[in-house]
Formats: sequence, structure tokens, C-alpha cells
Amino acid sequence: MSFISRRVASTPLLDQVQDPQHLRRMTTDELAALADELRTEVISVVSETGGHLGSSLGVVELTVAIHAAFDTPKDTLIWDVSHQCYPHKVLTGRRDRMRTLRKKDGLSGFTRRSESPYDPFGAAHSSTSVSAGLGFAVARDLLGGSEDVICVVGDGALTAGMAYEGLNNAGDLNRRMFVILNDNNMSISPPTGAVSDHLNDLASRTGALAKERSLFEHMGFEYHGPVDGHDVKGLVAVLRKLRRESTGPVLLHAITRKGAGYSFAETSHDKYHGVSKFDITSGKQSKAKAKAPSYTKVFANALVEEAKKDDRIVAITAAMAAGTGIDIFAKQFPDRAFDVGIAEQHAVTFAGGLAASGMRPFCAIYSTFLQRGYDQVVHDIALQNLPVRFAIDRAGLVGADGPTHAGAFDVGYMANLPNFTVMAASDEVELTHMIATAVHHDAGPIAFRYPRGEGTGQPLPEAAIPLPIGKGRIVERGRTAAILSFGARLAECMGARETLEAEGISVTVADARFAKPLDQNLILELFSSHELLVTIEEGATGGFGALVLHFLAGKGLLDGRCDIRTMTLPDSFISQAAPVEMYEQAGLNAAQIADTLRKALLQKTKTATQLGQAWPGKQENYVQLTHRAEDR
Amino acid sequence: MSFISRRVASTPLLDQVQDPQHLRRMTTDELAALADELRTEVISVVSETGGHLGSSLGVVELTVAIHAAFDTPKDTLIWDVSHQCYPHKVLTGRRDRMRTLRKKDGLSGFTRRSESPYDPFGAAHSSTSVSAGLGFAVARDLLGGSEDVICVVGDGALTAGMAYEGLNNAGDLNRRMFVILNDNNMSISPPTGAVSDHLNDLASRTGALAKERSLFEHMGFEYHGPVDGHDVKGLVAVLRKLRRESTGPVLLHAITRKGAGYSFAETSHDKYHGVSKFDITSGKQSKAKAKAPSYTKVFANALVEEAKKDDRIVAITAAMAAGTGIDIFAKQFPDRAFDVGIAEQHAVTFAGGLAASGMRPFCAIYSTFLQRGYDQVVHDIALQNLPVRFAIDRAGLVGADGPTHAGAFDVGYMANLPNFTVMAASDEVELTHMIATAVHHDAGPIAFRYPRGEGTGQPLPEAAIPLPIGKGRIVERGRTAAILSFGARLAECMGARETLEAEGISVTVADARFAKPLDQNLILELFSSHELLVTIEEGATGGFGALVLHFLAGKGLLDGRCDIRTMTLPDSFISQAAPVEMYEQAGLNAAQIADTLRKALLQKTKTATQLGQAWPGKQENYVQLTHRAEDR
Repeated sequence: MSFISRRVASTPLLDQVQDPQHLRRMTTDELAALADELRTEVISVVSETGGHLGSSLGVVELTVAIHAAFDTPKDTLIWDVSHQCYPHKVLTGRRDRMRTLRKKDGLSGFTRRSESPYDPFGAAHSSTSVSAGLGFAVARDLLGGSEDVICVVGDGALTAGMAYEGLNNAGDLNRRMFVILNDNNMSISPPTGAVSDHLNDLASRTGALAKERSLFEHMGFEYHGPVDGHDVKGLVAVLRKLRRESTGPVLLHAITRKGAGYSFAETSHDKYHGVSKFDITSGKQSKAKAKAPSYTKVFANALVEEAKKDDRIVAITAAMAAGTGIDIFAKQFPDRAFDVGIAEQHAVTFAGGLAASGMRPFCAIYSTFLQRGYDQVVHDIALQNLPVRFAIDRAGLVGADGPTHAGAFDVGYMANLPNFTVMAASDEVELTHMIATAVHHDAGPIAFRYPRGEGTGQPLPEAAIPLPIGKGRIVERGRTAAILSFGARLAECMGARETLEAEGISVTVADARFAKPLDQNLILELFSSHELLVTIEEGATGGFGALVLHFLAGKGLLDGRCDIRTMTLPDSFISQAAPVEMYEQAGLNAAQIADTLRKALLQKTKTATQLGQAWPGKQENYVQLTHRAEDR
Repeated sequence: MSFISRRVASTPLLDQVQDPQHLRRMTTDELAALADELRTEVISVVSETGGHLGSSLGVVELTVAIHAAFDTPKDTLIWDVSHQCYPHKVLTGRRDRMRTLRKKDGLSGFTRRSESPYDPFGAAHSSTSVSAGLGFAVARDLLGGSEDVICVVGDGALTAGMAYEGLNNAGDLNRRMFVILNDNNMSISPPTGAVSDHLNDLASRTGALAKERSLFEHMGFEYHGPVDGHDVKGLVAVLRKLRRESTGPVLLHAITRKGAGYSFAETSHDKYHGVSKFDITSGKQSKAKAKAPSYTKVFANALVEEAKKDDRIVAITAAMAAGTGIDIFAKQFPDRAFDVGIAEQHAVTFAGGLAASGMRPFCAIYSTFLQRGYDQVVHDIALQNLPVRFAIDRAGLVGADGPTHAGAFDVGYMANLPNFTVMAASDEVELTHMIATAVHHDAGPIAFRYPRGEGTGQPLPEAAIPLPIGKGRIVERGRTAAILSFGARLAECMGARETLEAEGISVTVADARFAKPLDQNLILELFSSHELLVTIEEGATGGFGALVLHFLAGKGLLDGRCDIRTMTLPDSFISQAAPVEMYEQAGLNAAQIADTLRKALLQKTKTATQLGQAWPGKQENYVQLTHRAEDR
């Protein structure tokens, strides 16, 4: 196999491949040559689109070999995490759309059931493939089918408990299925954990150890390998043999290199895990120059500053050291930073143990991934009222990674828990204050959420100051309508205000800061001095706006004195696009906020007019008369 | 060691033990005798209180040995799940309160931080102890302490991915800590999974296999054992030796028998896992005679009936076959029932794979345990819109198991997800219809929740009929106020109605059936024809009531035409008591519902009167004048 690190214009074999059926008629020499062309194509595509390059390059030969040895899409091929699916997409009828990858209305950066019959199970979070694959295998057996099930799972994904649960059950049920371990000795960061060492042992074992059963054999799998994951001919041969002979669950251990075949990727520290557009010849990525530091970086730097003053601060990440900024913290405080692997359940309860011991743990996990640790958040942290600090990055819509990575539900799943304090940063200045707030909040668990991407560019304060718990702030005062914003839509609210003021509608804008505890006084003040209150948040229903409504309903205040609207993410998953496009689709940009206010005020005026004209002084008529069809 | 299966009145050694300090001065002969007395005491206590007997009897000797060998409470002892903590409670200063176990204002049936310094980390869900213990160990090392950390974890708990995540990270961090594997070859049911077989191998290995490294050694632990978990002297010796010599993470494999030392427990199929009060001499449990079949049984029987007609129905439980009724299903359809172990993450995605293959999977998991699979519910099921049926038992407050087992959050964490349909059964007749509804709902995921305990005793329908999706029903019609109930508070609502009607307040009661999609027409009808609408649910804020409020706010209807209140579980965790007492504390019984309506109507009348007197026909005055301090 010859690795290629420059663009080759000609792809004669690949050009013939309309679908994987074609691969099954090729010789293994042709397949090896096809793999080279496929690698070239993937590099070419991602140089234009950006995306998950390193992992895709690592599985080029595996992809070719699997599609050649198995009968996809009749056979079920599931890619774990599936950010490595670009070569698969090229081979399965999507080559002509590859340059729409991760763009609005384009191909998803992950496998997606609605996109192709070759994507029988979508993914984007890690370690789900064995569980899903076992479901397909069991269904096949119940329905009397004969199709095969193949799951390709990375060594990083094996750090997650879910993978273990799946393997344990699969080993027990003993169904014919193929798990291919794509062992590149990398997660997004180098993998951590004892199992990673075990895989290294397996890859290099000799003598007496070679006879010892592997972890996978202990779990009921037949173990084969390790094999060279870049040797197409060898891979095709072993897969065809396994397919012929196996009866139960089989694990094939393939050794691969992340970024394989593209020198700049191979030598990069993160193996080009996720890249921007880049120049193929130089490997240079063309990142748009940041106008302001990212929220992630602001968080990391602020946490470092706090940790200099407080030995009890420790930081925990679940295999996202760079993504969460904990790598910056770890450089400064290597003994106080913990990357626990793709293990959010453990991360949360580990933080609970630290908190119970008097430490001040910051558990930095993306909103979408913290879902993995939800029971631990409830049962270990909230119920025991332990002061774990949750730094929730990627809150709200995230752009190219699409709906699987959206941080849509955290406000709902945390702010309805007893004992929790939940904040959202409206900008990076607020974020630094919230970090200080969290440091000093030992009374119970506290979470603060902030979005993906750049801050607003405001100068950061010299010193971060803890905020009073449960107190919001009025940003601009007006008279007619009030917007109560929770989180980083604040700038859009200010934009809406500007538009409306120009139209003669006087608008107050407030920053709630806290979804829990609610600033009841602020809400009452806004509610008693405006005709309309609009809440807004970068999250689903059941979160901040819901808590405001519950509060007002409980006080008996939803009686018409002030009208109310809640703006949230819509009841749908929003496909990948630029964040600004996604928020437009969600109906949460400045113009849409302004429109919501305008319409609500108009509706209220109408109702009031009817009320004024028709008001007969009797409650039951009031109820009847104001109820017109158009209000529904 | 002599096992005792009858009550021994005299406990001379135990009577001397005020705290575990005392054990450290006893000879091992005395400790062995103490264990016998302790067993007697536990049997005596549980014969009066009921509770988790089998698991507690299995660790009597372990409990004595650990407290003798280690320096609790300075040393951190964490019981996984902690339903086996009764002997521990007896030895740690709580003997005189043992007969309040699991009762209102009494001792918790689990370890609890607020109860004793000997309970450094509470539990009740499984497999958290290693993660928490590692947190304590790391904190100790950072703070320069020397105390030890001991986690006692059952073999059943090892089926959970979280245990694996904890072990993997502990093996990697290489901190001194002791994990004692309490291997009784039982979960609540016999354990499933390949790892269980591996433990059996370990317990019986000889010859060449004896030299092979265990799963735990692969994960970075020193492995010791297996040892007899009922030999106090042997246990004390090995624990003292390990304590003296160990530097890194150590796993001690102890073989125990669930129910050990009480013949009726040992020979019972479930080893007296959870028992009612019982007669010690005969072992006979005095269960209160059920007035009606339990919801669980109604579910199981109805699912069996549906499955007779539909081959595609399969059922999944996560180690709760008896608790969920899947054992009944499994008897009828052994090939279509799957107990995956304590592995809710896997259970959900496994069901997803089955659904993607055209099966109709029923994933039967308690509300509180489904929290473990929340990311899978979001990422694998909702996002892919796969028709997995979630049968959510133990919805609402559950009684003696207390807040760790409360099903408080499922409506919020499911009904705010796109694509989901969420139902709650108001009685067992409704439950049967909802099962039929779920069977026929292939359009996406669907969940139905129902409480712990007996149904209302209504005759079950001959044939279950699928309900129209998103349609509620009016149960009784009235004029002034409407109660919209979601779930099994319906009977209490009817009680409240009766009280209020007697007072001359005419009340409509409706059963929402669906939290998602909402029955918008029903809500609009109730809202337009009553002065007050009260929603009620056996769940936290952010669920059904929140969605009703969001809907009405979105339509601009919260304008005073009809007032609204939402009744939910309060913002606190409610300690164990009888369910009826817990619901009283939650404020959700008939009298409290009636009171909520009364007060709201009074408040509304006051406001309306002010409105009528002061109404000047101008909106801004209207807003000002109705706003008095007392409304806040």
C-alpha cells in the first residue's frame, strides 16, 4: 500500500464505483488501489469542507475491506461515533454530495438513517454501536434472517461503560455478530484508562502472554488479531474467513493509525481530528481569524486564575481535554486535572466523591454529553446536595456537528432538580463572574452553561466577582415590554430592542443569569411594570421559561395584568448549518424576537380593546366574550 | 461459623458495641461470635420492619471484618447500592433506631450522608461506589491524608457500565484503594452477562487458568481471592494484610451467599431480596392482602396478551425482571424477553436496534433507573425517531425506598424531546389501553408511565383498545373550575371534586392521558369554559404542567380569561414514608387539590372585583391597578 500525501487528480477505479456491490467484483489488488484513490478523495473533500479528517483517514482500508467482504446494505454496518464515515459515504452513493458535508441542507458529518440505507443506525456520541448491533442481530434471529451485523468501534469508545454493557450482553447472548476494534491508540486525545494499556498489551504480546485470554474473551467474544488495519488484502482475507466460519460474537482487533496516509495529519498532535478547510500541499488550515476569544478559552483561563488562589479546585473532563479547555488547566495544574475517558457517568460521581471530601471539583462536560451522566447528576449529586461545579460548554445550537451535539436539554434536566443552582452566561464577562460564583458556592451543586464559539469581544474584568445567587440584572430599561433573557441570546435581545425602540415600542431587557433559583423579585418587577414579558433561552421547553411560568402561575399572577411569551428551541431537531442559520430556523434571532414582541403586543391590544368595549362587569361574560376563534 | 436460622434473644457481645472502635479491640473469635449475634439482630429487625434482608445477611461477616480491620469513619467505607447496609447500621450507632427502618422519619433503608458520619456517600442505584471512592482517594492524596477508602460492590453491580468506567479510571490512576467484590452470584435476579461467567471462572479456576490474569488485573487492579466471605477470621486476616501492604488499587474477591444464615432466605428463589414483615420461625411473610392487582402485573399480563397476537413484540428489562413484570412475559415468551443486566444505557440502544429492524420493543425500566439511559433516549431513540416503547414503572413517589427511587423527572426529561409521545395511566384500565396504543404506534418513540403498587380495582376490559394519539377525556363535567390530571392522581382529583361540589363549587375533571402531544383542543375547551384550570401530575416541574403553560403562553391566552395553577411534586426530595404520607407532604392529595382550587378561585374573585370596580377602560391603568402587594 502506498500512502499518499498529495492530491492525485485521477481516480479511475473510484470513478467506477456507484455502490459497494462493485467492490465485491474487484480483485484485492484493485481494492488496494481503490483504497488509495479513496484516501485521496477524502483528503480532497475535507480540504474544502473541513471536518473529521484524522479518523476517516484511519479507516480507509477498513471501509473498503468491509464493503468488499460483506453484503451491505443487506448486512448491517454500524460505525461507532461515525465521524470516521467519510470514506463510507464516498463508497455508498454519496460521492457527488461530499462537498456539502456538514453544511446546511448537505450531508451530515455522521451516519444518518434518513440519508442512506447504508446508514442503518446513526451516531455521533460514542460507544453505542455494539448495543445497537446486538439489537439488529437479535431481530435477525427472531425474524429468521441471515444478514450479518458489523460494528466498527474505536479504542477510545471502549473507555465508555456503555461499550462494556453492550459487549457483556452480546457475549452472553452469543449471537453471530462482528465487532471490529479500530485501535488507533487515540481518542480525540490519547486515550486514558487501564483498558487502553490492555489493548497495547494485546497488540504486542508474545510468549506466555500470547496464550492468555483477552478482556474480550473473558466477555464471551472470539478474539482475532491484531491485524494491520491498513492492509486491504489482509483485511479482506480475514473478514471473508470470519464471515465464513463464525457462529457467535467475534472481535477483530485491527491496528490503525489516525490520520494515516496524509503526512500532516499523521504528524499533528491531534492527528487532524477535526479540521477547518486546509491547503493539501502545505497542510495549513485556514481558520477564520477569531474576533474574540472563545468561551471555552475564557473558561479555561478564568479557572486557572481561580485555581491559583484555591488549592481545592480540581478539574475533570471526559475525553474532551482540548474541547473543554481542561488541557490549559492541566498544563498549569497537572495533578489537579483528570481526564477520565469517555466516561461521563464516572466523571460526575468521581466529582461527587471529590466534593464530599471537601474539594471544589469543576466537572467540564458539553451539554449533550452530560446527558450520559444524568442519573449520576440526579442520584449522586442533587440528592446528596454535593457542591460539584458543572461547566456546561456547547450549550445551545452548535453548528456543523448538528443535532446530535446540540446542547438543548440541560436547563430542563438540571433546573428542575432540587438543590441545584443553574446559571447561563450572557457573554464572556458574565462567564468569568459565574466561574467565581461557582468556586464560592459550597451550599450545593451549581451549573453554568455557555455556548460554543467566540465571545462578544468585550474586555474581560481584572477580577472576577461572585454573583449574588438568584439575582438577575436589568440591562436596559424600557416601559412597554420586557425581555428576560437566560444565556447568550442577550445580544439578539438587544438587537430586537433597537429595532422596536425605532418603531416606538419601549423595551426593557434583563439578563436572568439564574434559571434556579429564579430571581422572583426581578420577575415580579418586570411583570408589574410592563404589558408583556418575553422569556428567551437557548434550550428546549421545560427549562427557564417553564420555571418562570410555573412561578407566575403559582402566585396567581397569570391573570392578564401582563401578558407572557416563552421563546425556546422548537420541538424539532435542527439539522447542521451555521449557528446563525440554525438559530434563524429555531426562531430565536433578533428579528424574530422583535416579531414575537410585536405580535404579542398587537394581540394584547386587541384583547384589551374587546375587553374595554364589551366589559359588562361580570366575570363569566368576561371569560366568554374575550374568547374568539382567532385567539386560539 | 455457625449459621443461625432462629431468633436468639441474647446478644451479649453486640450489646457492648457502641461503635466500630470496639471491634478493633476484640479477638477474632469474639468477632466471629459477634457476627452471629449481628445476623440474629438483623433477622429480628427485618422480621418487624421488612426490607432488604437477603443482601444484608450476605455481608454480615464482611461488615464485621471491615469495621474491625479498618478505621471507620476516618476511613471511607462505601456500600454499593447500599441495600445491604443493615448490619453496618447496627454496628455504627444506629441499633436502637433499626426498627424505624424505611418508615417515615426513621432510618433510611440505604446509606445516607445526613444520617451518620459512617455513611460518607449515599447510594441506592447500583455501581456508583468505585467512582465515588476514587474521588475520595484522589482528594486524600491531594490533601496529603492517609485514610483508606473501601468500596463494597456486588457482582450484579459489575454488569453496569458505570462500574467498568470507575474501575478503568481507578486502575489508570493507580491510587491506593480497596474494592471488595461481594460475589453472591446474584443480582436481584440471577445475574446475566459474560462477566458473570468470568467471575464464576475465577472462583473455581485451577491449573493453567489460575495463572491467567483476571479481568480486574487487565484493568490495573491487584487481584486477591477468592476468599470465603463468611469466614470472619479469614477476612480480618486478609484485610489487615492488604491494608498493611498495598500501595495501589486492590480488588478482593469474596464469595458470599445471599440470605446466608437464615434457611428460609437461602432456599428462597430470590433469597429474600426484599421482604415484608415475616415470622422468624416459619419464614412466612405477612403481606397485606392486595385489594387489586398491581400496575406491574396488569402491565405484564396485558403485554403477554398483545404479544400473543404480534410476533414483533419483544421485552427488555435491566436486571428487574420481577420488578417490572418481564418475568411473566419471559415465561410465556422466553426467546422474546431480554434481561440485559444493570445496564440501562445498553437496554435503551439495544431496543433501538430492535426497533430499527422492525421489531416492536417494550423497554420496561423504572422511571428513576431510566435516568441511566437518558442520553440513549435522546441520541439513539428520539433523534432517530425510533419506535421504542418505554414502559415506565414506579412513576411518582414510591414509599419505603424513598427519594432515590422516586420517579419524579421522567415526564420532564422525555416530553420535552422532539418526536416523543408521552402518556400516563390514570388507572389500570387506562394502562391496558395505553399498552395497546404503544403496540400500534410505529411513528416514533412512545412512553407510558404508571405508579408503584395496586391499581384501583376496576374490572379490566375484555379487549384493550388503542387510544387516539394526543386526545384526553373529560371524566366529569362541571362549570367553574377544571382539573386536568396527568396520571394516577385522577382518583384524588375526583375526591377533591366531591368535596368542592358539596361546597357548591362546580368542578370538571379531565384525564389528559398525553403530556405529548398535548390535547390542545381539550385544553382550549376547558380554558374557555371555566374560571380556573388546575393541572396536576406525579412529577417535578418542567413536565406536563409546564407544557400546558408553554402552549397557552404561545397562544397568548394567559390573559386573565381563565386562571391557571400547576400542581407538581415540590422542589425538594421527599424522604421515605408510606406513599400516601409522601403525597401529603408533596401537597398532592384530594384535600390539598381542593384547597388549591378554593384559594385560586378566591384570589381570582378578589382580582375580578377590583377589576370591576376600578376598570377605567384603559389598558395601562388596568395593568397598574390590578397589581397589589398581596398578589405577589
